[in-house]
Amino acid sequence: MPEPMIEENPLAPELIVDRWFNTGMPLALAALCGQVVLLHAFQMLCPGCVTHGTPQAEKAHRMFAGAGLRVIGLHTVFEHHAAMTPVALEAFIHEFKLTFPIGVDRPAGDGPIPLTMQAYGMRGTPTMILIGRNGRIRHHGFGVEDDMAVGARIAAALRDPAD
Amino acid sequence: MPEPMIEENPLAPELIVDRWFNTGMPLALAALCGQVVLLHAFQMLCPGCVTHGTPQAEKAHRMFAGAGLRVIGLHTVFEHHAAMTPVALEAFIHEFKLTFPIGVDRPAGDGPIPLTMQAYGMRGTPTMILIGRNGRIRHHGFGVEDDMAVGARIAAALRDPAD
Amino acid sequence: MPEPMIEENPLAPELIVDRWFNTGMPLALAALCGQVVLLHAFQMLCPGCVTHGTPQAEKAHRMFAGAGLRVIGLHTVFEHHAAMTPVALEAFIHEFKLTFPIGVDRPAGDGPIPLTMQAYGMRGTPTMILIGRNGRIRHHGFGVEDDMAVGARIAAALRDPAD
Amino acid sequence: MPEPMIEENPLAPELIVDRWFNTGMPLALAALCGQVVLLHAFQMLCPGCVTHGTPQAEKAHRMFAGAGLRVIGLHTVFEHHAAMTPVALEAFIHEFKLTFPIGVDRPAGDGPIPLTMQAYGMRGTPTMILIGRNGRIRHHGFGVEDDMAVGARIAAALRDPAD
Repeated sequence: MPEPMIEENPLAPELIVDRWFNTGMPLALAALCGQVVLLHAFQMLCPGCVTHGTPQAEKAHRMFAGAGLRVIGLHTVFEHHAAMTPVALEAFIHEFKLTFPIGVDRPAGDGPIPLTMQAYGMRGTPTMILIGRNGRIRHHGFGVEDDMAVGARIAAALRDPAD
Repeated sequence: MPEPMIEENPLAPELIVDRWFNTGMPLALAALCGQVVLLHAFQMLCPGCVTHGTPQAEKAHRMFAGAGLRVIGLHTVFEHHAAMTPVALEAFIHEFKLTFPIGVDRPAGDGPIPLTMQAYGMRGTPTMILIGRNGRIRHHGFGVEDDMAVGARIAAALRDPAD
Repeated sequence: MPEPMIEENPLAPELIVDRWFNTGMPLALAALCGQVVLLHAFQMLCPGCVTHGTPQAEKAHRMFAGAGLRVIGLHTVFEHHAAMTPVALEAFIHEFKLTFPIGVDRPAGDGPIPLTMQAYGMRGTPTMILIGRNGRIRHHGFGVEDDMAVGARIAAALRDPAD
Repeated sequence: MPEPMIEENPLAPELIVDRWFNTGMPLALAALCGQVVLLHAFQMLCPGCVTHGTPQAEKAHRMFAGAGLRVIGLHTVFEHHAAMTPVALEAFIHEFKLTFPIGVDRPAGDGPIPLTMQAYGMRGTPTMILIGRNGRIRHHGFGVEDDMAVGARIAAALRDPAD
């Protein structure tokens, strides 16, 4: 008799990033296994990111860093590539006083969608992805997210054991 | 050898309420043991309640009712008693479209502070009190509370077992 | 040959008020002729008033008093009469720190709509009415009004001569 | 007997702009004499511009274009020059759906402050400058400006004759 199928959250694909800001060394999900990760995918010229999603990620970083949450920004440029360069991103990070680590999603050679964005099947920006201690995706949200719901999801993830 | 002292959260005093709105029967904390309770103490003419605390309590009620949270409002009138009568509160509840149960804190015979407010040692309104499944006070906050922090506290309380 | 018809703004009906707050003497539009008057009709339990219209009127009062604008509040109770009494209004004015003069619209003997509200044909609360130096209604708006538009209307009225 | 000295608002220096967006032809203040001009100086990576000043300028443009107001944006890049290039500005204008004409302030050869910004003595971004029909500066404000005050200043300027 076959084992019953257990529907599980998908494993979070590894980040494909060449350049990092706000961190002395590159980050990899593999090395963060056992921790809860909040991934904030954004573009510096995306209005919904600038006015809502990115400040929300910064707020979560400040609120939950002490509790073990790892907030990681991912600059997923899929349009206006000539405008949203790493040097422009660096100025953006400085001006908006962002303090969480931010990586630049690696451009694809053959299309506008960068590689990590493709791997996660993101629909646009801002996208918020919450990864549990077991490395699986607990939440994948596109667009504006409510602060109260975000806080609840993070706290629940921090309470769950790795397995 | 004596047992080590364990500092514990204080037990939540029982509600002392004569009249209820938005519920067919009176509520008592004793009967809610094993559940998580969010107590929102307010006054209908308190600006910080009307513009922030009370809508936040309504939002928590709508967001977490399905997860088992019990949001209870407590009208703790400690000033302007002639203005904030039960008939005025009823109109307020109707106009502000509040749907969670709300009780009127019993006036003290010998001073302005009503009895439940006294028992909890509340400093004013709005006050938010989060009671765990074990009937103990997990959080007692006075003034404006951040949505993200509120969501996190509620989710953590819902995850904790009764003991 | 008949005179050409000139479409004019209607004359502002006189206020019918028994009790005033925040003023040492009763106000009458007749006595304010030559001045610009901003009439803010509200109810203390109307959410759109409490969260938007009434703070906006207070802001206009503080911003334009030095330029000659007269902001007058009118408590036009047309529902929940038992809740929105003058004693409740007095507490509301105190708690929300309103400083402009506020009158209580006189109740009609034979229906819920008070007399000044009837005379102006107001549709509900909040209602903002701007009266020019010539005593005529320049603007009659129901619901949420944009701050920039309100500022522009007031400044234009203050610039216009009485005739 | 000498004429008394009349203190007057200073004349608005001409715009020094090489490249324009949202307009088919270059704009010059000299050609707009007799009209009221609202000049919004900003940088696309200035948080106070992105979240407040620039949307406010767009709102003024939509609200008062029919009344004759000319809103002109001026991209006064004085820091992060490598990030805030014209190609980046073009993407910013597209993403933030700005519809008013925007010119790029000409870089100085010998310092970070561009030429128009120098000529006006601007202190930073956002800066709002309101120019009357007579070509003189009626208001020069740095930082966040209140919508109600902005609306009032514009309406007053529109009411004033050219001389």
